[in-house]
Amino acid sequence: MENLTMLTDLYQLTMMQGYFINGYRDKEAVFDVFFRSLPFDGGYALAAGLEQVVEFIENLRFREEDLAYLKSLNIFQDDFLEELRHFQFTGDIDAIQEGTPVFPYEPIMRVKGRILETQLLETAILNLVNFETLIATKASRVAAAAGRGPVMEFGLRRAQGPDAGTLGARAAFIGGCQSTSNILAGERYGIPVSGTQAHSWVQCFPSELEAFRAYARTFPDNCLLLVDTYSALESGVPNAIKVGLELEAEGYHFQGIRIDSGDLTYLSKKARRMLDEAGLTKAIIVGSNDLDEETIFSIRAQGAAIDAWGVGTHLITSKDSPSLGGVYKLAAEGENGVFHPRLKVSENISKITNPGIKKVVRFYDRAGKAMADLIALEDELFSERKSLTIFDPIQTWKRKTLVNFRTRELLMPIFRKGKLVYQLPSLMDIQKYSRQELDTFWDEVKRLANPHRYIVDLSPKLYDLKQQLLLTIHNEIKSNQNQNQEEE
Amino acid sequence: MENLTMLTDLYQLTMMQGYFINGYRDKEAVFDVFFRSLPFDGGYALAAGLEQVVEFIENLRFREEDLAYLKSLNIFQDDFLEELRHFQFTGDIDAIQEGTPVFPYEPIMRVKGRILETQLLETAILNLVNFETLIATKASRVAAAAGRGPVMEFGLRRAQGPDAGTLGARAAFIGGCQSTSNILAGERYGIPVSGTQAHSWVQCFPSELEAFRAYARTFPDNCLLLVDTYSALESGVPNAIKVGLELEAEGYHFQGIRIDSGDLTYLSKKARRMLDEAGLTKAIIVGSNDLDEETIFSIRAQGAAIDAWGVGTHLITSKDSPSLGGVYKLAAEGENGVFHPRLKVSENISKITNPGIKKVVRFYDRAGKAMADLIALEDELFSERKSLTIFDPIQTWKRKTLVNFRTRELLMPIFRKGKLVYQLPSLMDIQKYSRQELDTFWDEVKRLANPHRYIVDLSPKLYDLKQQLLLTIHNEIKSNQNQNQEEE
Repeated sequence: MENLTMLTDLYQLTMMQGYFINGYRDKEAVFDVFFRSLPFDGGYALAAGLEQVVEFIENLRFREEDLAYLKSLNIFQDDFLEELRHFQFTGDIDAIQEGTPVFPYEPIMRVKGRILETQLLETAILNLVNFETLIATKASRVAAAAGRGPVMEFGLRRAQGPDAGTLGARAAFIGGCQSTSNILAGERYGIPVSGTQAHSWVQCFPSELEAFRAYARTFPDNCLLLVDTYSALESGVPNAIKVGLELEAEGYHFQGIRIDSGDLTYLSKKARRMLDEAGLTKAIIVGSNDLDEETIFSIRAQGAAIDAWGVGTHLITSKDSPSLGGVYKLAAEGENGVFHPRLKVSENISKITNPGIKKVVRFYDRAGKAMADLIALEDELFSERKSLTIFDPIQTWKRKTLVNFRTRELLMPIFRKGKLVYQLPSLMDIQKYSRQELDTFWDEVKRLANPHRYIVDLSPKLYDLKQQLLLTIHNEIKSNQNQNQEEE
Repeated sequence: MENLTMLTDLYQLTMMQGYFINGYRDKEAVFDVFFRSLPFDGGYALAAGLEQVVEFIENLRFREEDLAYLKSLNIFQDDFLEELRHFQFTGDIDAIQEGTPVFPYEPIMRVKGRILETQLLETAILNLVNFETLIATKASRVAAAAGRGPVMEFGLRRAQGPDAGTLGARAAFIGGCQSTSNILAGERYGIPVSGTQAHSWVQCFPSELEAFRAYARTFPDNCLLLVDTYSALESGVPNAIKVGLELEAEGYHFQGIRIDSGDLTYLSKKARRMLDEAGLTKAIIVGSNDLDEETIFSIRAQGAAIDAWGVGTHLITSKDSPSLGGVYKLAAEGENGVFHPRLKVSENISKITNPGIKKVVRFYDRAGKAMADLIALEDELFSERKSLTIFDPIQTWKRKTLVNFRTRELLMPIFRKGKLVYQLPSLMDIQKYSRQELDTFWDEVKRLANPHRYIVDLSPKLYDLKQQLLLTIHNEIKSNQNQNQEEE
């Protein structure tokens, strides 16, 4: 990935200069990355994007042309630009591993360091984590709907720019896709690539049959024929069967057909019968054309004879929910490693942040199923030998007592004092890990529509801290108001 | 932009190898880039992305590591990989200029050359043109809703990856945004950048008032204060007024405030009154928080006192319509410069393509207003001295006779025999050109909801060619079917 140091909002740099010249050069801060609601009205999200965040941070460096550009804006002082020239990240980052199911308000990443450094990182971290988490989650839903039928990602032409196509293919693989059509993603991330031919191939030959034969000659071992250029049932499937039988007669295995338009249920059932009657019972049928998890679910429920799915636009753009609202919020500030918890108030109760340096603890029952997550302060311990009563932070009367549990802390050390201390897993391993992690959740949490809401509560200690800070801020505002009124 | 040669679908390369070894190495083809329906149920789209397509083509080159990766897939022959090693684009490209209002089925780009070359380009061209055209169109709607109030694009953190943020900022500027928060976009494309401070700035100081004063000290000429960290009306606005008056007392102009949550109509009206009563009548109010063209339209209609708008997620992801379905379809194939028109049939009438090498002609009335577009064959001429009767290609009884018109051809030569022959305009000039072009359209075509459908017809000659080819294909399918039945 190229150097993304300048991939940030101007206000990060104006704030940085503000801190720099107002005596806050060594002020330290802790920021949390989290989202407030699940996309797709779903039951979970899959964390993704950490590898790109690591690359971004490892490549952080303002180039001379960047500094020249910033100087040209006439708002930055020379001594601040000089500070940027030597800029690097020297802080700590903790993160939840890619592929882990995560839930609203959980810090999926925690960034701690000099405010000058932590502030700069906000925009690029959110950009990368928001997008990849969104697409991994969408892909996980699509793969779930497809059941055992593999899903091929091929949305590059409709992706929101080159990176969206390539990072999207990576995230889609984490979420359970089997391959991508995007060869740059294949080259860069080792994702298996797939693809055969387009309608234009068929149109370029004097006839569909000649086009199919030419393809079979070129790729006899990997011959999947697109049958709907002229008419799937009247022309495409009969011609594909001819060529398939010719291939089989020469000792090759004929792979099958792809249908890319029309009523996939009807056409696939008809095509299946035609293939079977010709003896091509092992030839597969790939379905594509504007698919998403709902259409796949519905097409399967109707008994369509589709063995594999090509999914494009809806997956790569996450069409029904094209953004994840991940935020980067100040949780604490301090100096020399001593931190004070901070929160942001809002009229909207869901926008009030959780203060302090926090961690995420996942509680499992003895069968290994996830029961609940707790957002807790970093120094809290939860003994597996005692019972624990947790409660909903808004509807506090909703209580649950956990007994006989095992706990696991989800945040892992990624950077320490600016040094990478985390071994990035391979993409294959992330996909496998993610599947195992999803297995620890009940099906009710994972179902596509109206899932059961997984419990994420605040630890009693964090809850108390939050209430106390809210009260302090409320009192301060009131006392300032009174003071203002007296002055008037 | 980096080398995007590998940003393509595997099937482009498998087809290329197929052409290569089936005697079609020098076959030539013409492809059209067009979309079938307008996003947002709107009345127009703004073409964008041409500059990135030019860069992509100028940088086309398979690197040694790309060839090694392709070889590792074990599906490509050495002689084909050798062909790729020397790959370059040697054909012609015509395109409609960026910023031009365009409509369904119009070729906004036309690519002509050896099929080996033209096929490879499909995916990246669609990726770039689809996304930028979508965002330019969305931005144009947002800017229209905002009226005279400038729109600042600041969606980078929610964009679908780094390129989406940066190319999206470029496209948003074409569509009429005044600035972006994204400094990489500012550096790369010369877009004005804007931004001041975040909630975290306010939280990092012992009090909001101290935070505001520190910011004013740092940027006395450019002091726009974010007032909703604790409570906009009870704390933020009163503190901003204090600092604003202090600045004005020192001879500076206090820029104003930004409100980023809550009821923007109510809060802006209240804040306006408070600022005015304090004598800060020139201080502006910026509104932000999940805005799009509809909310801006509605907030303005309610009489909100907002002078400028910050628009993020909805614009940069085109949230209500996150993909443009642009396609790249074969229009003709041939050899040695002699071409045969081709079309793709579909059960869905809207998916049947227009055959032949085509152009787009825009007809203006004497007052300079656009009346209709005609998709025509390249060699057709339309005399401005005669009247012309055009008709809807589906509802052919819908006819209109044009008299006293001026015509303009929209496709411009971009590449000739692989050489760039087009002078890329500056982004500022594209924005200006786009505004002028939009002025040639009636307001009814441009309105946000239920716009009047602008007329785009086929020339009689193109219409006849299409009907004739459809008939030929239909007859061929039937005769093949009969033949198959006789064989059985």
